Amino acid sequence: MNQSVVIAPIQESLVSFISSANYSKVFVIADNNTKKHCYPLIKAALPPHKIVSVASGEKFKLLSTCETIWDAMTREELDRHALVVNIGGGVIGDMGGFCAAVYKRGIDFIQIPTTLLSQVDASVGGKLGVDFQGLKNHLGVFNIPKTVLIDPVFLNTLPVREIRSGFAEIVKHCLIADGAKWKEISTIDFEDQNWMDLISHSVKIKQGVVDQDPTEKGLRKILNFGHTLGHAVETHFLAKAPAQRLFHGEAIAVGMIMESYLSFKRGMIDTETLSNIEEFIFATYGKVKIMPEEVDAIVSLTRQDKKNRGSEIRFSLLTGAGSCAYDIVVSLSEMRKAIAYYMG
Amino acid sequence: MNQSVVIAPIQESLVSFISSANYSKVFVIADNNTKKHCYPLIKAALPPHKIVSVASGEKFKLLSTCETIWDAMTREELDRHALVVNIGGGVIGDMGGFCAAVYKRGIDFIQIPTTLLSQVDASVGGKLGVDFQGLKNHLGVFNIPKTVLIDPVFLNTLPVREIRSGFAEIVKHCLIADGAKWKEISTIDFEDQNWMDLISHSVKIKQGVVDQDPTEKGLRKILNFGHTLGHAVETHFLAKAPAQRLFHGEAIAVGMIMESYLSFKRGMIDTETLSNIEEFIFATYGKVKIMPEEVDAIVSLTRQDKKNRGSEIRFSLLTGAGSCAYDIVVSLSEMRKAIAYYMG
Repeated sequence: MNQSVVIAPIQESLVSFISSANYSKVFVIADNNTKKHCYPLIKAALPPHKIVSVASGEKFKLLSTCETIWDAMTREELDRHALVVNIGGGVIGDMGGFCAAVYKRGIDFIQIPTTLLSQVDASVGGKLGVDFQGLKNHLGVFNIPKTVLIDPVFLNTLPVREIRSGFAEIVKHCLIADGAKWKEISTIDFEDQNWMDLISHSVKIKQGVVDQDPTEKGLRKILNFGHTLGHAVETHFLAKAPAQRLFHGEAIAVGMIMESYLSFKRGMIDTETLSNIEEFIFATYGKVKIMPEEVDAIVSLTRQDKKNRGSEIRFSLLTGAGSCAYDIVVSLSEMRKAIAYYMG
Repeated sequence: MNQSVVIAPIQESLVSFISSANYSKVFVIADNNTKKHCYPLIKAALPPHKIVSVASGEKFKLLSTCETIWDAMTREELDRHALVVNIGGGVIGDMGGFCAAVYKRGIDFIQIPTTLLSQVDASVGGKLGVDFQGLKNHLGVFNIPKTVLIDPVFLNTLPVREIRSGFAEIVKHCLIADGAKWKEISTIDFEDQNWMDLISHSVKIKQGVVDQDPTEKGLRKILNFGHTLGHAVETHFLAKAPAQRLFHGEAIAVGMIMESYLSFKRGMIDTETLSNIEEFIFATYGKVKIMPEEVDAIVSLTRQDKKNRGSEIRFSLLTGAGSCAYDIVVSLSEMRKAIAYYMG
């Protein structure tokens, strides 16, 4: 892979990247929020360019939004030597990257992730795509951006709920790969965390894993800890009223408790580790209300998880605070128990 | 690349491939013609499977048709370990391959090309995609099928016009890479060609070129000989009444005469080579009627060619009968002259 990631003031890193290359045109993809709040921070660092902005939010992470983007790219007559600059959170990174990777069978793109979540997670690893028929990232490709430019300055543009959501992936990275760091962050309140340090730590962990297994044949699956039930919970809540919907990280936090419980029930982690995780996550995220009649719907949503093989549902489960195993088949009844455990 | 291509009786090659692998499900993509005429030849050689068939023809090579296919794949709950079998011509190969390459970020697929054109061209090289806003293969990816199973038996299902269309790519392969073979085929009438021999010859040439340059950074562009103006002519005629539309190879035959003329005008081939090419192509394909008022429209359609850089239009031109150069910038006025030359 050798994916380039630069954590630095964005004007510097952007000017340096652009001047090192020779693109025929530059085309920016943003959403309505990032066009307003983030694009002004990079505009002057770019050569003459066009920008397309789309409605913001996961519910517009659709093929039809891609068509709008492809339409704009075509009207600008971007050729194969053009550069796409994606500025936004995970939705823009995944969808804008997908649009670039498919336009004329693939043109160069770079990611400027503007949310904590996308800085520590979505921007690294080359997973691109859109949702389809309510299934997350159901259509997509693997493709590596030319570079990822990360600048914590963009976090200033975010509401705290958004930062808290991104923090869930940081917690995950510690839990699956760095017990010492988990110990460190779990004794610090969310408000007092050192984001610069944690972004750099998370990017390193994710890159290390992805480098060993770019296309998720094996080891990379550990990054899915918390995500099998977490995605199901997220998808289930997507159908609810806007006020009840969960941010991605909030759903993953729920999933991490459920899947820690599964790890515990399989004898892979001890009771102390389970309670530490649980306490820290509840203290940070509170508890999401799930009604007994919702359990079956959530369980059945795990069937579309991309890690599955045939009818089996495979999980990535902790083998300790700081290590993780993958491809562990879990039954529907175990899943129901894990959800019930979370519901308390 | 190491793309596997097997030229053999289809039942044998298919059974051998399937039994060597371990797929969770098998899913066939066909069009209405190939479902009726070709699918019966492979049905019994496959394990239990589902099939989706779409309307046949280039005008359905669209993102909306992909959505129909993705919808069917999703309903069948294909997981990442499923196999897609594309049975059809270039449209099904390109579009079905694209659907497989994008579904859950890519699942395995094999190509069973059923037209001469797709057997000698589209099935080799990993170019996948669909048309968008009237632009050919404007959206797509590079991805290699697990294998390509070629059987000349399918040619028996084809009208002669379809075979003549495919023959144009065989002529092209000889002209760009094998002067001796060009000499051989140019003395034989179309009806008397040896298809088994020519298919195998064309596949070898294309594989040789593609292996050296899978993503078309350089050498592979020679495969575009005849295609810059040929595609423009094809696209231009797409807007006409069905009876006037051209098959792909028919348009490429037109393009090869125009681009041979450009090669001649640049002093790259001599007058004898130009007339040999012209005579053989006119004898095989007749002459397509282009009106003076259509010239500008055709020229302007070359601007969307994927080989271009910025506003320059780059051609692959012959340097002899059997050799080809690429990235040759040609002006709009030269193109107009080449079209006028063809029109005579």
